[in-house]
Order: sequence, then structure tokens, then C-alpha cells
Amino acid sequence: MDFSSAQRLDDGVVERPFTLGEIPGFLWTPPPSRTGPAPLILAGHPGDLNRMYPRLLARARHAAAVGFATATIELPGAGVRPRSAVAEQARADLRRAVTAGEPVSDEVVDRLVLPLVEAAVPEWRAALDALLAVPGIGGPVGYSGGVISIGVRLAAVEPRIAAAVLFAGSYVPASIVEEARRVTIPLLVLLQWDDESNDRQMALDLFDALGPAEKTLHANMGGHTGVPAHEGDAANRFFSRHLMTGGAR
Amino acid sequence: MDFSSAQRLDDGVVERPFTLGEIPGFLWTPPPSRTGPAPLILAGHPGDLNRMYPRLLARARHAAAVGFATATIELPGAGVRPRSAVAEQARADLRRAVTAGEPVSDEVVDRLVLPLVEAAVPEWRAALDALLAVPGIGGPVGYSGGVISIGVRLAAVEPRIAAAVLFAGSYVPASIVEEARRVTIPLLVLLQWDDESNDRQMALDLFDALGPAEKTLHANMGGHTGVPAHEGDAANRFFSRHLMTGGAR
Repeated sequence: MDFSSAQRLDDGVVERPFTLGEIPGFLWTPPPSRTGPAPLILAGHPGDLNRMYPRLLARARHAAAVGFATATIELPGAGVRPRSAVAEQARADLRRAVTAGEPVSDEVVDRLVLPLVEAAVPEWRAALDALLAVPGIGGPVGYSGGVISIGVRLAAVEPRIAAAVLFAGSYVPASIVEEARRVTIPLLVLLQWDDESNDRQMALDLFDALGPAEKTLHANMGGHTGVPAHEGDAANRFFSRHLMTGGAR
Repeated sequence: MDFSSAQRLDDGVVERPFTLGEIPGFLWTPPPSRTGPAPLILAGHPGDLNRMYPRLLARARHAAAVGFATATIELPGAGVRPRSAVAEQARADLRRAVTAGEPVSDEVVDRLVLPLVEAAVPEWRAALDALLAVPGIGGPVGYSGGVISIGVRLAAVEPRIAAAVLFAGSYVPASIVEEARRVTIPLLVLLQWDDESNDRQMALDLFDALGPAEKTLHANMGGHTGVPAHEGDAANRFFSRHLMTGGAR
């Protein structure tokens, strides 16, 4: 993990762009604390760090205010990374079905999402190895964001992830719904009730399938990017309950 | 409104049983504050104050910790109040259908719930008149609890109620679902995902019908009485945002 620079922002958060092999990423750390290393939150997103940067930075600053470090990496096939011909074809097939008002077939969903999950999850785990070796960064670790299929897979297979906030999304392969049943860590699922790009019933069915005894759904009005500010506070409290030993609820 | 006694509890909350005509009730007030009168929360419940007392007291203490007064009154036909022959017959018909595994007809739901709403809502509004005249109690007012049909009607017709936390329930008459569309105050709806006595889809449909631009659904695992403690904190924050001018989020 190569850090090219470090920049202290006006609220004391330090931003460090990095590369992990060919994969670009960011690490944001809160001002140093006397209570030991900062627990880490991996910030999921739908791809293209340049486009997502303002929202990822806002989430990182919000989490830093209660002592969390945040890190993210670019997704395979997105931003500056090489495109995948298979994924581009699947995306075109999906767009064609949606434009024609046809149902999106399970085959297209599998072809779009499963290779992304297969490629991305080992990268996030490798990033986790490197991030936990950075001085001042500690565990336990949380995952927060979309793509929900990546979040479900990470929650199911990565034992260092102790809690997750999952942003509801459609186009979840049936095999990922089956994996969801095996998740046991505490989950908070955020659903935008009027999300133009998501299927509400599919999101509720996935919530129902998720395995843990402690799972909570927060549904709010509005579209895909309209998550209200109080949900940022709710995510902080959720992670504080589960990642900070003896921390405030 | 006649107060029979006042008792200071160990956390400084003052409990005052009262009667409003023939209707018994309770008022719980937080320790006096220098910031003026305590905003009032009306605590809804399914009836029978004796049975509900421990849970109502726990909710009142939790709300008092952030400065809210809480009041409740007995429902028509419950606890020490005279039974209604119509309601008892409707309840028996409902129980018979549920025991036989038959669907509960709209006609039985209307016969059970509509007279209760018609009788209870004017009583809660009269209680509100009397409570807001008690020194140290102020507006704006919140409603928190079930019966959800009573909460919807109050939220739709009582202008002094500025925000409500509604506990999801089944057996909501179609005419109440129509009234829900006219509600404009901010709402937080709590749904127990595995509630043995509620129909989940009916609860989601009612949430969808509710009118306000700001409405949030919190769904948690577990049965009817298993609402997790962190939802008490969430309700406090929701009411603090909407009832306390310049209050903390």
C-alpha cells in the first residue's frame, strides 16, 4: 500500500490517497485520540471514486467525528481501472431490458453482479490486510455502503468485519440471497422507499433473508441519493455500539 | 383533571395518577429544568393501564431523561372502565376467525376498531386540553405508541400534535388507511418484523400510505414486546429533533 501524500483537512481529518497495486483508494483518519487506534470502516460505493468522492468524503468526516477511520478502494472495471468486456455487455443488456420495460432476467443479473463480487471481495480483503498494518488504525472493522452484494459476501466470509451498514439495492443474484442467510454479524440496512433505481419488494425480501439475530431496517422517503442526514448519525451510533468496546450507545 | 397524589421516583421523575371524569391516567414529569416547560408526549397503548404500567413507566422514564413529560389515559372499554357490548362481540368474532385460521373480515375489523377510535380520540384531545394547563407542561406535543389507528386519527386531526412515533399493528380499517394519506406531521413507524400478532405486509402497506414527506420506518427482529432498547433512544432523538426548538439532534 503506497501513500502518495497526506493532507490535513479543516476539521483535522487527514486524507491519504493510496494505491494497492493498480487499485486506487483513500484513507481518512480522525485527529489522534488518547483512547488508542481508530476502528476502521470500509466505505462501499457503486464504483468511480472521482464521481463518488464528495459523498465518500462527507461520510468519512461524519464517521471521524466520533472516532472512526474510513477507507475505500476503486471497484474492478470502474473509474481509472480497465473495463471488463463481460461486465460492459451485461450492463448493456440490463439497460436494454430496463429501457424496453422488460423484466431483468436472473441470467443478466448473475452475469453483471457475480463476477464483480468475485473480483472485488478479495481486493477489499487485501486492502484490509494493508490498512490494519497502518499505525493508528485498528479493528474491529465495519463495512458501510453498497454494492449490497459485495457487502453481503464480505459480511459472510471476512471474520474481521464485526458489523455492517448495508445500502439496499436491487439486482441481487439468487446465490447472494442464499449467502445472506449465513451472515451472523449485526446489520443495519438502509432503504430509500422511493428509490427509482431499486425494487422495494426485492430489498425487503433480501432483508428478510439476512441471517443475524440483530438486524434493523431503516426506510426513509426519497430517491437513491436522498438518504437523510440523521441516518449518518444512526450509522455512527450503530457502529459505536458494535465496534467500540465500552463505547457510548 | 384531578390529581390524587404525587410521588417522586428514585430518578427524580414525578408520577401523578389522575382522573379526567371517569377516565384514569398518569402524568410523569422530569426533574424541573431551567429551559422552560417540558414538551409533552402522549403515550399510546392497547388498553388496561394496570397491565401496561411497567412498560409505560419505563417509556416515561426514558423520555424524561431527555426532558420530556409523558402522559397516558385508559382506553374506552379497558381496565377499570365499563365494557362495550359491541366491542366485546367484535373481539370474540375476531378471536374465532383467528383460531379457525380464517381471514379476519373487513367488517369485523371496522366493528372492532372504528368505535374505539371514535370514542378514544375525543378523550385524548380533552386530556390534552387539561394536561397543557398543568404548570411546567408545554407544547409542542408528540404521540408515541399504539393503537396505530388512534395515532393516525390523532395525527390527522389534532393540530397540537407535531410529531408521532407509531407502533405498527394489524387490523387497520380501510377508512383509517385513507386518513393516513392526509397526515402531514413527521412520523417514525416501529415495526417488529416477526410480530406474531401483526401482519407484516399490512403494516408496510400502511407505512406506504402515510402522507408526510418525512416518515421513517424502523424494523427490528423479534416479537410484539421485543422492541430493542436502542429504539427508545431513537424515539428520544426523533422527538428532540421535532419538539425541542434548537434542541440536540
